[in-house]
Amino acid sequence: MTGFGLTVTARDGAARCGHLETAHGTILTPAFMPVGTAGTVKGVMPEAVAASGADIVLGNTYHLMLRPGVETVEKLGGLRRFMGWPGPVLTDSGGFQVMSLAALRSLDEDGVDFQSHIDGSRCRLTPESAIEIQHRLGSTITMVLDECVPYSASEDQVEASMQLSMRWAGRCREAFVEREGHALFGIVQGGVHPALRQQSVAALRKIGFDGYAIGGLAVGEGPELLCKISRSTTALLPEDRPRYLMGVGRPEDVVAAVAAGVDMFDCVLPTRSGRNGQAFTRRGKVNIRNARHAGDPRPLEDGCACPVCAGYSRGYLHHLVRSDEILGAVLMTMHNLTHYQTLMAALRDAVVAESLTAFIESFVAGLEVGDIASL
Amino acid sequence: MTGFGLTVTARDGAARCGHLETAHGTILTPAFMPVGTAGTVKGVMPEAVAASGADIVLGNTYHLMLRPGVETVEKLGGLRRFMGWPGPVLTDSGGFQVMSLAALRSLDEDGVDFQSHIDGSRCRLTPESAIEIQHRLGSTITMVLDECVPYSASEDQVEASMQLSMRWAGRCREAFVEREGHALFGIVQGGVHPALRQQSVAALRKIGFDGYAIGGLAVGEGPELLCKISRSTTALLPEDRPRYLMGVGRPEDVVAAVAAGVDMFDCVLPTRSGRNGQAFTRRGKVNIRNARHAGDPRPLEDGCACPVCAGYSRGYLHHLVRSDEILGAVLMTMHNLTHYQTLMAALRDAVVAESLTAFIESFVAGLEVGDIASL
Repeated sequence: MTGFGLTVTARDGAARCGHLETAHGTILTPAFMPVGTAGTVKGVMPEAVAASGADIVLGNTYHLMLRPGVETVEKLGGLRRFMGWPGPVLTDSGGFQVMSLAALRSLDEDGVDFQSHIDGSRCRLTPESAIEIQHRLGSTITMVLDECVPYSASEDQVEASMQLSMRWAGRCREAFVEREGHALFGIVQGGVHPALRQQSVAALRKIGFDGYAIGGLAVGEGPELLCKISRSTTALLPEDRPRYLMGVGRPEDVVAAVAAGVDMFDCVLPTRSGRNGQAFTRRGKVNIRNARHAGDPRPLEDGCACPVCAGYSRGYLHHLVRSDEILGAVLMTMHNLTHYQTLMAALRDAVVAESLTAFIESFVAGLEVGDIASL
Repeated sequence: MTGFGLTVTARDGAARCGHLETAHGTILTPAFMPVGTAGTVKGVMPEAVAASGADIVLGNTYHLMLRPGVETVEKLGGLRRFMGWPGPVLTDSGGFQVMSLAALRSLDEDGVDFQSHIDGSRCRLTPESAIEIQHRLGSTITMVLDECVPYSASEDQVEASMQLSMRWAGRCREAFVEREGHALFGIVQGGVHPALRQQSVAALRKIGFDGYAIGGLAVGEGPELLCKISRSTTALLPEDRPRYLMGVGRPEDVVAAVAAGVDMFDCVLPTRSGRNGQAFTRRGKVNIRNARHAGDPRPLEDGCACPVCAGYSRGYLHHLVRSDEILGAVLMTMHNLTHYQTLMAALRDAVVAESLTAFIESFVAGLEVGDIASL
C-alpha cells in the first residue's frame, strides 16, 4: 500500500526537514498539529486553523467516542467531514485520556475498562476496538493503543507496562486495515530508562509501522530528560519514517526536539493558553490580563503574520479577555496557533539553510529578552 | 454640515428602501444593526460580521464607559478602530442600560447617578456627558440621552418622563459637535399613548435631528401595540430622515415595522440566541440542543448563504453546543447574523418590486410551516 510516506529533503545534524504525503494532503515537516479534542480546535474555524499554517490536526478518540460517539461521527461523514477540516487528521488511541480523565479504570491483558468522565457510563477499549474506532472516524494517521504510566512509576512498573504496550502494538498492527495514504504509528514507551526505550523500539521495528511516536514523555520528567530521551530514541528509529513526539509542547521543547530529529508534535498549549489569556511571542509569554496592557495600542507581537496582530491592539485584547468575551479566547488562540506554525516554518528554513544551531541561539536569546517594555 | 443623509429609492405603501450615507460608509435601508455591546459583536470577528451583510454595528455607551472606559477607547483610536470595524457605528446613550442594569439609580432634572454593575463604582450621565462620551468614542450616529420607563408606568409617569427626555434632547442637540457625515438622532418617547407620542415627535422635530428613533417599545407591550405605535409614529416623522426602531427585534416584528415605514433596527436576539443554541430560519426557530438533531447531516437552513450552512451539519452544531464548545456559539451566531441580513435584503428587494404584501404573506406562511421533519 502506498500513498503515505516521508521524503526527507534536508538535514542539519540530527534534524530533518521534509514532507509527508498522505491520502488527505501533504504535511510539511517538522510539523506542529493543533489539538482538535472533541472535533474542534477550540474556538477557531477550520479555515483559520489552515490559515495559521497547520497542515494536520489531531483528534482525541477518547473524547469523540464518548461524545458524540463514533457512530454519529461516522454517520456524518467521518471526523474530517464532521468538523469541516479537509486536510489530514491524526487520532490518538484514547489510551492517554483513559489514564488521565476516566474514572474506575481496570486494566488487564486484553484491554481497559473505564467510566466516562461525562456521564459515568461504562466503556471498554482494546487494541482492536481502538483501531476500529479510529478507522470509523476516518483518521489519516491511526495511533496504537498503549498504556501510559505516571512519571512516579517504578522501573519495574514501567517495564511491565511497556511490554504490555508492545503486545498491544502487535495486536493493533493485526487489526489495522491498510488503505491508500493512511498510516498506523507505533508508540515507543519505556519512561526515562534508555534500556527500556531501546527494547521498545526494537519490538516496534520488528512489527513494522508507518511512523513511530515517542510516548510517555512530557509527564513531569523536565526539559533535560525530555530532550535526552528524545535524542537517544530518534537515533534508534528508521530514517525513512516520521517520528512524532506526543504531547510536546512548549516552544523551547519543540525546538530542542526538532534538533533531536523529531518530525511531528502536538500540544494543547497554544489553544489552552490562548483561552486563558496567555500569548506566545518570540520574546516569551505575554499575560494579556495584566493591567499594563490596558491602553497599549501595539500588537501582541510585532511582525507576526496573524490577523490578530494585523488588526487588534494589546489594549483591545486585554479588554476582551478581562470582560470574558468569547472573541478574546478566539483571537488569542488564533495568534498562538500562528505563532507555533511560524516557529515550525522557521525551523524548517533553518534546517534547509543548515543554520539550526544559530537559529536556536537566536531563539533562546529572544525568549531571554522578555516582553516589550510598557509604554 | 453634509455627508450624512438618507436617499429613499423605492416605496411600497408606508415602507421605504434606500441608502444612508455616512462618514464611514453607506448603509442600505431597511438595515439591521448587530449589537456589539462592549466593543465586540459577541464571538464574531468583524470580517464575519461584514460578510453576513451588516453595514453598521451598534455599541453600548453604558458598557464601554464602565469597561474599558471612554479614555481607553479614545486612546486606542475610537470604537471603530478599537474593535476593528471599519464601517459606521451607532452608539446608544447609555440611558437604557442605566435603567436596566445599573444599581442605585437616582434621576434628577440634570441627569442620572448610578452604580456600575461591574465594580459598584459611582457614575453619572447627563445629556451633555452622554454626547461627549459618544463623541470621544467616535460614533458615526450618536443617540440623545433619554429616560426609559418600564411598561408598567402610569400615563402620568410616562408623560413626565417623556417631557424630561424632550428637555434632555434639546440639551443633547446643543452639546452635539457637528462633523461631516456624523449624525445625532432624537428618540421619540410616550409609551403606548398616541397623544404623548405625537407631543414627543413635535418636540423633537422642533429641535431638529438627523434621524428619529422610536424608543420605549419592545418592553412588554406585545407585537400588536408595537406595530400600531410604530406605524402611527412613523406617519408623523419627516420623510427625508431615517427612522430607527430601538431594540426590535424578532424577525416578525422587524418585518411588520418595515411595512410601517421603519428604516433601522437593532436587537441582541441573533447574537444572544445563537449563544444559547437557538437558530433563526425561514421556518421558525430551531433549538439545536434538541436530541433530534444529533445525527442530522443537513444544514441549519437549506439555501442559506452563510458559511455555517455551507460547511456544517446540524449534527455537528448539536455536538458543539451540547459540549459547550466555543465554536458552537460562534457558528450559531454567524448563522443568525446572516439570517437577519438575508431577511433585510429580501425586504429591500420586496419594497423595490412593490411586492411587500406578498413577501410578508410568504414570510408568515414559512414561519407557520415550522422546522423540517426529523430524518
